[in-house]
Amino acid sequence: MSKLILNVIHGKKTNRIPIWIMRQAGRYLPQYQALRKKYDILTLFLTPELAAEVTLQPVKILDVDAAIIFSDILIPCLSMGCKLEFIEGIGPVISTPIRSLEDIKSLKIPYQSEETKNVSEAIKIVKKKLSQDKALIGFCAAPFTLACYLVEGKASRNFLHIKTLIYNQPKAFHLLMEKISQILINYLRIQAESGAEILQIFDTWGGILSPADFTKFSRPYLEKLVSEFKKEFKQPLIYFMRGNGGFLHFLKDLPVEVMAIDWTINLLDASRCVENRFILQGNLDPAVLFSSKKIIKEKTEEILLQGKKVKGHIFNLGHGILPSTPMQNARYLVDVVHNYILK
Amino acid sequence: MSKLILNVIHGKKTNRIPIWIMRQAGRYLPQYQALRKKYDILTLFLTPELAAEVTLQPVKILDVDAAIIFSDILIPCLSMGCKLEFIEGIGPVISTPIRSLEDIKSLKIPYQSEETKNVSEAIKIVKKKLSQDKALIGFCAAPFTLACYLVEGKASRNFLHIKTLIYNQPKAFHLLMEKISQILINYLRIQAESGAEILQIFDTWGGILSPADFTKFSRPYLEKLVSEFKKEFKQPLIYFMRGNGGFLHFLKDLPVEVMAIDWTINLLDASRCVENRFILQGNLDPAVLFSSKKIIKEKTEEILLQGKKVKGHIFNLGHGILPSTPMQNARYLVDVVHNYILK
Repeated sequence: MSKLILNVIHGKKTNRIPIWIMRQAGRYLPQYQALRKKYDILTLFLTPELAAEVTLQPVKILDVDAAIIFSDILIPCLSMGCKLEFIEGIGPVISTPIRSLEDIKSLKIPYQSEETKNVSEAIKIVKKKLSQDKALIGFCAAPFTLACYLVEGKASRNFLHIKTLIYNQPKAFHLLMEKISQILINYLRIQAESGAEILQIFDTWGGILSPADFTKFSRPYLEKLVSEFKKEFKQPLIYFMRGNGGFLHFLKDLPVEVMAIDWTINLLDASRCVENRFILQGNLDPAVLFSSKKIIKEKTEEILLQGKKVKGHIFNLGHGILPSTPMQNARYLVDVVHNYILK
Repeated sequence: MSKLILNVIHGKKTNRIPIWIMRQAGRYLPQYQALRKKYDILTLFLTPELAAEVTLQPVKILDVDAAIIFSDILIPCLSMGCKLEFIEGIGPVISTPIRSLEDIKSLKIPYQSEETKNVSEAIKIVKKKLSQDKALIGFCAAPFTLACYLVEGKASRNFLHIKTLIYNQPKAFHLLMEKISQILINYLRIQAESGAEILQIFDTWGGILSPADFTKFSRPYLEKLVSEFKKEFKQPLIYFMRGNGGFLHFLKDLPVEVMAIDWTINLLDASRCVENRFILQGNLDPAVLFSSKKIIKEKTEEILLQGKKVKGHIFNLGHGILPSTPMQNARYLVDVVHNYILK
């Protein structure tokens, strides 16, 4: 049985639009909450059987067209020797941020670590259990986004630490990016070898630089990651940058198959900015899932209609589903997308 | 003596590029800190002599080409009867957010209040003291941005309260926007009558909606504000939306003279998106002011070079100057812009 998402990516004609949801495995699902009562989040990420179970929950409950491995973009920081905690209300925190040349020199870049091995084990388990028409997505952070977390220590407002590192210690910054790129290439490789069929690169903080600085300091490492991967693997890549409205023009040569966009640009404008070169993924505002069925249907169909006019379309939210989202609204969204008739 | 900024806005040839800095009156200036030791921030905003003194500080210290009245976009909330506090580390807080139809109905819309009268008095004092070649800028929030603050109560991450109000209680939302537009029209009027020569509309949260929702729920009130103002006054308007890369295309018909942009899109792309219809204001990343003189000069001149190729250019940061910015770097920035030779 062929997989809907892969068919869309490969340009085959499909009779409906595939959907998956960023952060689809998570707190808005009561079944997930039940597991979280028994285990802390890092245990869920790093125990293959548990990570696999959480990965499969939304596939069963929502009938989305892909599973995405339940993990976190910061797991490779553990391989590098950093201390990572997940603090309620704050999110992931690197308690000893990397800010000096010495810090950067001390970062390890193993091919594989206990932690990433657990992720690959989870992928193998999911792959066996996942029904044949669903695809399994693996992921990693873009090099610059991982650098932001390592240097800032957590989500930041002004990103002054990373920016002053770039401007005031460019050699140290470039060494950091080299090391991060290497660990991420290894990490993508492990996931692809374990059975991930699509890989998404999350560039959550990719949009905090000016396009000129993005081009100079971030994009070369992103391109290196993508091209190294492409040398060895055939799996398609999805690139997601938050708030990329002003950047799409600079992304049009990126050798990935799918460009994921948030809701602050519409699909038609995005397609125009990248000269219709990519399958587009997105882009419903996650806040819409707090409204009525009528509004959810209306806004979803507006996007589906735009999607018909671009090279190809994978439905998703424009960012991760919010923890307090009513689960029945997420199910309804999947139904609306599945029932939409392509003419 | 003619005013450089107004000359640029009116399309006259000038021999250099004007500069002012968003939040130029503020905590990075020791002279401001000295006053803040004696007075709380709301006292500084609402005491005409003090607000005037703070307004003039950066003009003297940095030699910027415009003064912007020292105030806050939330001052009109006080006229509406809301309780407004400024809490260290959080920012402005409306302690009783407006979330129901009853809350919205209770909002007052006086033509003028004690608070806005104080702002107009401050404008009159500054106007008398400001040297003849500098322009005085007044400002207000865009209607949607003020609505965000009133409904959320403070800066928000996901803006769920305002978005659920839009989707689930559209009538209440539109009533709120009507009332806000009215109070803002009055507020711009008072400032223009008191001597403000340019008015900037800050749409800090304008970019949190999809372009479709922006067009439906935010833009009509923005247009109303602008067109009502234009009926009575000749003063030019500047519109600033944060993160507007995906929106510029939808802003190209807005009847303002100046489009201010942040650093996530470059001047040339921005100009192309709006079909070269506006004078552009911006757009150095405020974080650059934490680097060396060499880098500051390089990045500033990159922008100045782009500025030569657009309809007209007023130099500014892409967002407010950060509180911990070294003051000498802000002065150096002004020097670099002033010394740049236009050929």
